[in-house]
Amino acid sequence: MPASPMRKLVPYAEEAKKRGVKVYHLNIGQPDIETPREALDAIAAMREPIIYYTHSAGKESYRRGLAEYYNGLGIPPITYEDVLVTTGGSEAIVFAFMACLDPGDEVLIPEPFYANYNGFAVEAGVKVVTVGSTIDNDFALPPIPEMERALTDRTRAILICNPNNPTGYLYSEEEIRELGRMAARHDMFLIVDEVYREFCYDGASHFSALNLVEQADNVVMIDSISKRYSMCGARLGAIVTRNRDIIDAALRLGQARLCPPFVAQVAAEAALRTPQSYFDRVKEEYTARRNLLVSELNKIDGVRCPMPRGAFYAIAELPVDNAEEFARWMLEKFSFEGATVMLAPASGFYATGASGAKQVRIAYVLNKEDLTKAVKCLEMGLKEYNRR
Amino acid sequence: MPASPMRKLVPYAEEAKKRGVKVYHLNIGQPDIETPREALDAIAAMREPIIYYTHSAGKESYRRGLAEYYNGLGIPPITYEDVLVTTGGSEAIVFAFMACLDPGDEVLIPEPFYANYNGFAVEAGVKVVTVGSTIDNDFALPPIPEMERALTDRTRAILICNPNNPTGYLYSEEEIRELGRMAARHDMFLIVDEVYREFCYDGASHFSALNLVEQADNVVMIDSISKRYSMCGARLGAIVTRNRDIIDAALRLGQARLCPPFVAQVAAEAALRTPQSYFDRVKEEYTARRNLLVSELNKIDGVRCPMPRGAFYAIAELPVDNAEEFARWMLEKFSFEGATVMLAPASGFYATGASGAKQVRIAYVLNKEDLTKAVKCLEMGLKEYNRR
Repeated sequence: MPASPMRKLVPYAEEAKKRGVKVYHLNIGQPDIETPREALDAIAAMREPIIYYTHSAGKESYRRGLAEYYNGLGIPPITYEDVLVTTGGSEAIVFAFMACLDPGDEVLIPEPFYANYNGFAVEAGVKVVTVGSTIDNDFALPPIPEMERALTDRTRAILICNPNNPTGYLYSEEEIRELGRMAARHDMFLIVDEVYREFCYDGASHFSALNLVEQADNVVMIDSISKRYSMCGARLGAIVTRNRDIIDAALRLGQARLCPPFVAQVAAEAALRTPQSYFDRVKEEYTARRNLLVSELNKIDGVRCPMPRGAFYAIAELPVDNAEEFARWMLEKFSFEGATVMLAPASGFYATGASGAKQVRIAYVLNKEDLTKAVKCLEMGLKEYNRR
Repeated sequence: MPASPMRKLVPYAEEAKKRGVKVYHLNIGQPDIETPREALDAIAAMREPIIYYTHSAGKESYRRGLAEYYNGLGIPPITYEDVLVTTGGSEAIVFAFMACLDPGDEVLIPEPFYANYNGFAVEAGVKVVTVGSTIDNDFALPPIPEMERALTDRTRAILICNPNNPTGYLYSEEEIRELGRMAARHDMFLIVDEVYREFCYDGASHFSALNLVEQADNVVMIDSISKRYSMCGARLGAIVTRNRDIIDAALRLGQARLCPPFVAQVAAEAALRTPQSYFDRVKEEYTARRNLLVSELNKIDGVRCPMPRGAFYAIAELPVDNAEEFARWMLEKFSFEGATVMLAPASGFYATGASGAKQVRIAYVLNKEDLTKAVKCLEMGLKEYNRR
């Protein structure tokens, strides 16, 4: 597996830090939001004398809690038997690929897409086929006929991420319903990564693919607590589907790796009691950061950044020919007031050569003060880069 | 992936419990030993406000701690850069397979072997080829020439587990050295799963494959804290090798899954301070259980059980034609004084059809009182089964 364009930058960022340059990390999805007290207190209060294996599908009490949480979101009845707890959303995707597809089968993904899907596809032996979404229409779902033209007799699944990493695009109810019908029509799985569900802005609500009860056997939902509770390091996710064959197949994979992490499950079960006020505060904070980021970016000459409606990422087009080279230059050669920024070149999120060459993904996970400084730094960098 | 013979028994065990029958679990490797205080206290004392991603190779402080621990065992210098922390020994094996072998390549494993290796091989797309070890010579390493005859031009690795699950066999220094020379001679990797390192009895010492400095590039060691600290549910393991190409390849796989679990790493780092007295007590307890189990088993008519010198498993041959059927019968039809036993049919640990049909694996993870009752129950079951 080759290193991604972003990972290739890591040594340059380390070098910059060694030179005493502050690096604003706009490249990663590690939020600075505190984990809910409910989760942290549960860890501190843990009194089990043995850190034992849980059930391979996760602790039953946690699975029941998760089912209740989904039902509480207004999703038509989900039982704990529809839920399989995984070691992070990462494992959930690998298991979904392996349970839904045979080696050599294809999964269709609109690009740009979360770069790690490539690694998971390699692990599962499946082939990623893409269909393009573009910055010109804010990265909306490509037209269904265009998606259907990309299908072959090996295509067994469509995968989308909603709200989307890296674009921040929030798919509409109608788009999700269309995808469900398309999946059913072609006897495919619709795998929807909903790990950013809680991060929808401007009053928009999230429409889960689990609402598609008519295509219940086709729908596989991927979840994770990493972003919801700012517990990235817990490594807990889930596969949720009413298709018992998929749960059974995923469970057999789960049995080989024994169980998801124990303490994390204790913490996550407690986190289910996180009050709405926590999410309201978080959403307010991200909305402010997003507004700040997008408006400041669009003020910079030649920069274009659509307004994302979910997650905490934005894709921006920069006035450079090669954003990968620019991102490296920022780390290697540039600093402004003792600082520079690290960006994720968007080329890593595209399968098809030159698409996205001018784009970067920006994660707005910094506080507003740092974010302001980081965007200023980016602006100065662009100026100097284009003056060379 | 088909369900293993042991997993097929799970519904029968659940039924038995519903009927009010007590089931002694001789089938699983979940120890009843308490996790060290050092680890539990570290969890309770954790005050990080955010459960964040660690480095994909694990927290550097924990990797340094692990390197020190290996060096403290008398293993020639290991640095933290030789150590990659994984999500359980399970992930370490998958990563080792994927880093050392290409899809379609073969790994040679003496059978009987840990059944989950099959699942990991499927995930990595590699083929398991076996060479037999037998109960007649206590499951010692098969002769090297016999192993060499099993090699093909696709064989890229040998995998052994030392001390062995399921046989309890402890490989000698000479056997390990022979394997190292064989691996080097054929330009293969020697992958050694050493997760039971601390469980060696009768004064025997463990000879780690990491001692083979002459074949440093060939040796990949698999570790886990599950058994060492009775922290099965922590899901923390490691790949340790002086071959930087393998560490790099494993790291790229590790980056896709982001990081091993956070709280578990905090606990494991603290567990490195576990005093020797903890291990001495544990070893004493397992020695007593093993002696009790093996002597009682060998007193039963027609039962044969070699004395294992490591881990906490024994393979016993029973006076039945089909141990799988017998194990199911024990759960479905039999009870003695309100109890029955669950056994792991050894057929699941063999790749080659009928081998092991009369054998079961017994984990001596019950306290001595329960173990005595369980063996008595097995004896009565065998009598009734063979009288039918």
